[in-house]
Amino acid sequence: MKKLINDPRNAVVESLTGLVRMNPGLRLLEGSRTVVEDRASERGRVAVLSGGGAGHEPAHAGFVGAGMLTGAVSGEVFTSPSVDDILAGIRAVDSGAGVLLIVKSYTGDRLNFGLAAELARADGIDVRMVVVADDVALAGSSDHAGHRGIAGTVLVHKIAGAAAAAGQDLDAAARAAQSAADSLATMGVALGSCTVPAAGSPSFELGEDEVEWGLGIHGEQGVQRSALASARGTVDRLLSACLAVDRIPDAGRVALLVNNLGGSSVMEVSLVADAALTWLQERGLDVVRAWSGTFLTAMEMEGVSVSLLAVDDGLLDLLDAPAQTSAWPALSGRVNTEPFLAAPPAEAFGLEGPALAGRWWTVLEAVLRALQDAEPELTAMDQQVGDGDLGHSLDRGARAVLQEQVSLPCRPDLLLRRVSAVVRKSIGGTSGPLYAVFLLKASEALTGIDRPASADWARALAAGQHGIQDLGGACPGDRTMLDALAPAAEALAGAGSAPLPVALRAAADAARTGAEATADMAPRRGRSSYAGDRVKGHLDPGAWAVYLWLDAAARAVECSD
Amino acid sequence: MKKLINDPRNAVVESLTGLVRMNPGLRLLEGSRTVVEDRASERGRVAVLSGGGAGHEPAHAGFVGAGMLTGAVSGEVFTSPSVDDILAGIRAVDSGAGVLLIVKSYTGDRLNFGLAAELARADGIDVRMVVVADDVALAGSSDHAGHRGIAGTVLVHKIAGAAAAAGQDLDAAARAAQSAADSLATMGVALGSCTVPAAGSPSFELGEDEVEWGLGIHGEQGVQRSALASARGTVDRLLSACLAVDRIPDAGRVALLVNNLGGSSVMEVSLVADAALTWLQERGLDVVRAWSGTFLTAMEMEGVSVSLLAVDDGLLDLLDAPAQTSAWPALSGRVNTEPFLAAPPAEAFGLEGPALAGRWWTVLEAVLRALQDAEPELTAMDQQVGDGDLGHSLDRGARAVLQEQVSLPCRPDLLLRRVSAVVRKSIGGTSGPLYAVFLLKASEALTGIDRPASADWARALAAGQHGIQDLGGACPGDRTMLDALAPAAEALAGAGSAPLPVALRAAADAARTGAEATADMAPRRGRSSYAGDRVKGHLDPGAWAVYLWLDAAARAVECSD
Repeated sequence: MKKLINDPRNAVVESLTGLVRMNPGLRLLEGSRTVVEDRASERGRVAVLSGGGAGHEPAHAGFVGAGMLTGAVSGEVFTSPSVDDILAGIRAVDSGAGVLLIVKSYTGDRLNFGLAAELARADGIDVRMVVVADDVALAGSSDHAGHRGIAGTVLVHKIAGAAAAAGQDLDAAARAAQSAADSLATMGVALGSCTVPAAGSPSFELGEDEVEWGLGIHGEQGVQRSALASARGTVDRLLSACLAVDRIPDAGRVALLVNNLGGSSVMEVSLVADAALTWLQERGLDVVRAWSGTFLTAMEMEGVSVSLLAVDDGLLDLLDAPAQTSAWPALSGRVNTEPFLAAPPAEAFGLEGPALAGRWWTVLEAVLRALQDAEPELTAMDQQVGDGDLGHSLDRGARAVLQEQVSLPCRPDLLLRRVSAVVRKSIGGTSGPLYAVFLLKASEALTGIDRPASADWARALAAGQHGIQDLGGACPGDRTMLDALAPAAEALAGAGSAPLPVALRAAADAARTGAEATADMAPRRGRSSYAGDRVKGHLDPGAWAVYLWLDAAARAVECSD
Repeated sequence: MKKLINDPRNAVVESLTGLVRMNPGLRLLEGSRTVVEDRASERGRVAVLSGGGAGHEPAHAGFVGAGMLTGAVSGEVFTSPSVDDILAGIRAVDSGAGVLLIVKSYTGDRLNFGLAAELARADGIDVRMVVVADDVALAGSSDHAGHRGIAGTVLVHKIAGAAAAAGQDLDAAARAAQSAADSLATMGVALGSCTVPAAGSPSFELGEDEVEWGLGIHGEQGVQRSALASARGTVDRLLSACLAVDRIPDAGRVALLVNNLGGSSVMEVSLVADAALTWLQERGLDVVRAWSGTFLTAMEMEGVSVSLLAVDDGLLDLLDAPAQTSAWPALSGRVNTEPFLAAPPAEAFGLEGPALAGRWWTVLEAVLRALQDAEPELTAMDQQVGDGDLGHSLDRGARAVLQEQVSLPCRPDLLLRRVSAVVRKSIGGTSGPLYAVFLLKASEALTGIDRPASADWARALAAGQHGIQDLGGACPGDRTMLDALAPAAEALAGAGSAPLPVALRAAADAARTGAEATADMAPRRGRSSYAGDRVKGHLDPGAWAVYLWLDAAARAVECSD
């Protein structure tokens, strides 16, 4: 057994102590596992008490608080609390207006809560008991085993608690709770088992793709085992079973509760809730409230249950009444009739001038072809020192830009901005954003300049370099593309007003020298930062790629000059 | 892979759709995985946007809502969202007052959110970015790998959202968020791995008693593997690591967040929270707020993380400001300084008269000894038709009553009530409450009668029988103890004013006949209701036990007459 506990014998009490210590409105009755509202016995209202075996957390103590339960009596894991603990709980919460017991239909709970009620009555406390049997898994079988009380019970807690908080007397609150219990259906499916701390091993085993349908909440098996279905198929079976009993009318208003049995991911539970909403709405049911979350569990069991409660105006008002407990949702459960919003219009690129042709296209195409040609070399280099995707990433970006030729503008600043957008959308990973910000910042440095001179390009290269440094957090010397880019920018700036072919050649040569120097650098940032010493002697492929495209640009500018 | 999904490619969107459909205050941006507040762009306040890979639910979309996040941009599972999705999110939430980005420190998130911020700024939107790196697992390692952003990020969401809701401008809100990020430490431990839907198999395997310390939240392994420790030992290691960095002063006020990594039971998380509170208080830290629950997960990974946030008055006010989202707790997080309440005094039994002796003690002792003697026979019978515990249960109860001799009162009603209490506390299971209510109801029927005649005992037996029927829900004919008890009560009533030995003999004989008739009854209730046809031909041991003690009583009354 693998659990975060100290001693299986103390796990329940320590867990409840944690709950109470983080909720000043609660008290743990000394010597028991019973959680009650602070000053419960002074409230002058009907008290609502529930409970049962532990292992169903957050039920039941997580629902103790204003507007819901006045107290919760817990037994050991999956074991009914003792009559005397329940009786002590009744005494602790009664303020003279009587106590309403909400009990899940299990023999032990019915007997122990029932006898405690008898004893409390003998003491002069007015007690009513409502038994919840929402499980429909056994609906078709002979009646001796009966229905069990499972996750839908939480909705009865909510309704009973709201009735009591509204000042209803014991008869009225019991009627409201009974009415909810009579209009409630739940069915569950398990994808895995659970382990009782005192037992130490799982209560049953399931195959790789098997699920248990109609399980209880005490680690017992379900009524049938089958192969795992899709979320939609699962919901179809669970909700069909809920509607097959006559507690839920085929049309009308329902509240939906999708409950995590413990170990399923929040993503799955929310996805199941989406499928359940769709299923119900397609069948014409009016889902007026819906919640998904972790309400009543079987320890860490993977799986879900879905509960339906048929509601009238009275029950709906009680569901909507405020409640503040650690486990009842903060949200109203109202269903969103307008869940989608059109996204704001994306960046629009019109043809801001004639399509690209001539010298700049020649240079750009040469750069892109050079990167495509270098794919095998860059891939091989990156497999030595990084994750091996650099060659393919740059090839993918180059291809995307080539495909955009017809929509590329001529003016250098607009061109670079457009290429930046294409690169950003096509490359991904880390190279995409870094090249995109490089091009964006370079574009900004050239704003409005129709025919940039060498000095303009020098400023653009420097601006791009600093954009990369700011975004990525690396500096020259960290063994990244900056180790080629920074010397290139410096060389370009140093070329002053030299003709562009000359200046670019100087920049490309500086980039080569810089890239070669990375072979001796320790990786502090970037692709090789997790690779350690084994990169020694290898060039950084990001830096080498910078040399390759600067070299291609310099050659193309020379030829087209 | 065993998950409740439809198609791995749609799991994230379907899950977010479920969330939004159950929260009318939210909208899902069409064509993306971005959730925003309804009318976010009309609020005129700073917008707070977070996000990152999916698989961390309820983060981040579960924290979108009043007082917290304005929007959350999700990528695929454990994959950073694209720059363009983030940019669209920024555009969707900005209302002119600027956008504060809360980003967890992962390279992909930093680059993509950072570039989106650049692009938004180029569009004239004021954007600030705060990077959260609360993970202390790698604190001792060389700095290149850096800290990661994990569950503590949710507290930064809360603080940034509260600052924005309070009308602070972008600079001030960013300062508050940065201040929280600088005062935050988190460390986690995993008891199991998780499975990315698109991958289909777990990201790592752990042995039966192994845990991973200092894991991230993307299914990657931690910094060290060791044997499972107790909850207290685990908390000691996690919190020691949090205090080892200089972000949390050794004394002063802290907020505590105990986070379920996904698949741990609620019981364990609450128990860990209890241990964490104790650990911190013992070391003199002033824990001013504490929450436990499911905040930021790694899918269904079993394990927890603990986060500490050092707070001043300003941060505390922001933590306390109202927030209403599906995943932020409904409770204030205030720590309970008075968690325990003395239980109300239990039922007090004084010596209400001289201790039991004489005839009634003789009869009672004979009954109890008969039940003890019958243990092997009843055990064997119950092993055929039930769970085999009847013999031991009744033996245990008999022994407990015998040990109480000195405190047993003489008057029959008081005696039966006292025996009922002893039986209730000692037997348990189903026999305990049923015998206890039998004795309680019989006691009530004899109230105030010093020397009951046969007719009084007949009324008492009938009252006890009906008490059992009411509590257990069974009737004569269901193959239970009632099939001996009901004919016995009838025979006793039929005996009229005959002397007690004669009347009791008739009752015992009727009980025997009734018990023997159970051999042909189908089990509808009680111990054999799950056993089906294989009980045919066997007597019901509960009914037989009734015959045995009535027979013993009849003999003893005869002898002592």
